Amino acid sequence: MRTQVAIIGSGPSGLLLGQLLTDAGIDNVIMDRVGKDHILSRVRAGVLEEGTVGILEKAGVGERMHREGLPHAGFSLTFDGRDHRIDLFDLTGGKRVMVYGQTELTRDLIEKREASGALTVHDAANVTPCGFEGEQPFITYEKHGVTHRIDCDFIAGCDGFHGASRKAVPAEAIKTYEKIYPFGWLGILAEVPPVHHELIYANHPRGFALCSMRSPTRSRYYVQCSLEDRVEMWSDDRFWDELRRRLPTDHAEAMVTGPSFEKSIAPLRSFVAEPMRFGRLFLVGDAAHIVPPTGAKGLNLAASDVFYLLRGLLEHYQERSDAGLDAYSATALKRVWKAVRFSWHMTTLMHRFPDTGDFGQKIQEAELDYLAQSRAASTAMAENYVGLPY
Amino acid sequence: MRTQVAIIGSGPSGLLLGQLLTDAGIDNVIMDRVGKDHILSRVRAGVLEEGTVGILEKAGVGERMHREGLPHAGFSLTFDGRDHRIDLFDLTGGKRVMVYGQTELTRDLIEKREASGALTVHDAANVTPCGFEGEQPFITYEKHGVTHRIDCDFIAGCDGFHGASRKAVPAEAIKTYEKIYPFGWLGILAEVPPVHHELIYANHPRGFALCSMRSPTRSRYYVQCSLEDRVEMWSDDRFWDELRRRLPTDHAEAMVTGPSFEKSIAPLRSFVAEPMRFGRLFLVGDAAHIVPPTGAKGLNLAASDVFYLLRGLLEHYQERSDAGLDAYSATALKRVWKAVRFSWHMTTLMHRFPDTGDFGQKIQEAELDYLAQSRAASTAMAENYVGLPY
Repeated sequence: MRTQVAIIGSGPSGLLLGQLLTDAGIDNVIMDRVGKDHILSRVRAGVLEEGTVGILEKAGVGERMHREGLPHAGFSLTFDGRDHRIDLFDLTGGKRVMVYGQTELTRDLIEKREASGALTVHDAANVTPCGFEGEQPFITYEKHGVTHRIDCDFIAGCDGFHGASRKAVPAEAIKTYEKIYPFGWLGILAEVPPVHHELIYANHPRGFALCSMRSPTRSRYYVQCSLEDRVEMWSDDRFWDELRRRLPTDHAEAMVTGPSFEKSIAPLRSFVAEPMRFGRLFLVGDAAHIVPPTGAKGLNLAASDVFYLLRGLLEHYQERSDAGLDAYSATALKRVWKAVRFSWHMTTLMHRFPDTGDFGQKIQEAELDYLAQSRAASTAMAENYVGLPY
Repeated sequence: MRTQVAIIGSGPSGLLLGQLLTDAGIDNVIMDRVGKDHILSRVRAGVLEEGTVGILEKAGVGERMHREGLPHAGFSLTFDGRDHRIDLFDLTGGKRVMVYGQTELTRDLIEKREASGALTVHDAANVTPCGFEGEQPFITYEKHGVTHRIDCDFIAGCDGFHGASRKAVPAEAIKTYEKIYPFGWLGILAEVPPVHHELIYANHPRGFALCSMRSPTRSRYYVQCSLEDRVEMWSDDRFWDELRRRLPTDHAEAMVTGPSFEKSIAPLRSFVAEPMRFGRLFLVGDAAHIVPPTGAKGLNLAASDVFYLLRGLLEHYQERSDAGLDAYSATALKRVWKAVRFSWHMTTLMHRFPDTGDFGQKIQEAELDYLAQSRAASTAMAENYVGLPY
């Protein structure tokens, strides 16, 4: 089989790139080692920048997002018994973010792709990008015991941090940067109305907490926990007690609790692989970089990678220019690193670090105190949160 | 002897407090373990916030400062071959800083005090604040083999980091916070015109450099150096070569060099002691807190401490209220910690840290890249540099 762009990974970045290519008349095939149900069972990010919303609209999946998604014009930082609202709308000259779960978004993209008739190969074992350093790249994979080969012009590696794409690159061709944070996030989903109509990021002596949501009736809550904790150690009661302790009294008292239907512990990591292009293989999203979820940047960075790669591919096929593809890695990385910095900074600002020491703790408190009085510092946070320009 | 306020230390903070008290008709005595010539031989800070300028004007020492000082409306950050100007005037709605050497300022304050007839005791050995936990504090010191005692209402400890005031407080009553930076500043004074009419803060792979000045004909330059370096290892030629390497080409080529007449290596430290009040003893300036010189905040923090303490003392003597004195420590520390944070942040942003690792280095570069494109982030830096409100 032959296609123009072979896409490895059927998460949101692969689906989004595929849809935009299909719409432009560029043939593409998506391969994934897992099935659709598995993809849709993942609970992930839920805050979309306006730039991301714009790309999703362009891909034709804006309708349900605008109908069911929740536009947010601000969020709260709570600390030291105070509540400092970051007024995104006011501070950024009218920008908002959209709260819409990645699961829903993925569902919309899958439906759209199925309707378009473009090919997605699920349950493809041992997907391997090959020959990408030369002019004739191809992908091999196995299915039902048969090895398949897809020849292509380009390969897009949209298969996440643990995927095959980055691993196919010789170690000496890649430079990685990493920071592991000394704590995790214990998160739950519960069918209860959110405690507040906007997100609350709480810095508390007992640790960070985040009150988020998926819909007006479904809450997504997190508490910072030890990396040694196991989900079994956290009954629902213990979780709700701990969450309430970390919130200002008015929110704690207003909290509606209920049984969780999802509970998991995730580590926090910053990771960047450079470059993001290796011949005719392009890494996109989590395949090239991971951010801690504090700044809600993971999915949005995947979308901006898709934006830059799509531009390069359109230039290649429509204008016979490789300038955009040649610039892809450097252009994408400039934006990636700013988001990595912001995610690191917001993580550092809002969590309690076991190893930070007295001086570091006071610096954190001084920064929050300063932020609460400074429109400039609040604006810097807001403009990063809604997304820096492409 | 008896006075109302006994001031330990005849550096700028002690002299400034003394002058403002004298002007308000409040009797005060300044004691210092060293002589006037020693005080005037110290080479220190040179960048004054507008708030500091205002306090100095109020103390009657504004005339020469305004005649000889250099108002600066901005400064440069150079990095990665780029030059990002922080336009203080534009970003802060019309604020500037004043470049005027601490030595000159101290000279003005000494002359003013001598003219006022207020008492300064120099070469006072073993100055010791006593009885400050009770109602009748006093100071003892020795001079020419005789022990003297000065009874007073209050003691102001303006005697710097190594002074007797903080040391007189029982260790268990004081909590200290400290960070030592893994490098020093090698600084020179030279009778050459400054390379640029504004300050240049340079981040370079070889280390930080700062181009400052004392006057249109006298330059103050620094390069980040190892803590193991000794002044003898740095000939003038080596210094100039190293400084030029760390600057953008246009500045390096324009640099006028010449023999240095002062050369020294200083370590960089952040330090805060809490509280700043112990009964009738009040710590002021470096006696309570030290910042690395990167943000030019040391002298300015001393001035804001003087401002808060003066306000408390005036309320005590003129309005018979101790509210201002009772609030002194908390009020001063709120501003101190924000300046400590800013100084730490600017130090972290502009130096090369031997132990920062690849990830930390990329975060620093991403922040500079972001700063250069963000008016909000540049404004946050500018508003801290010109001084946060009192």
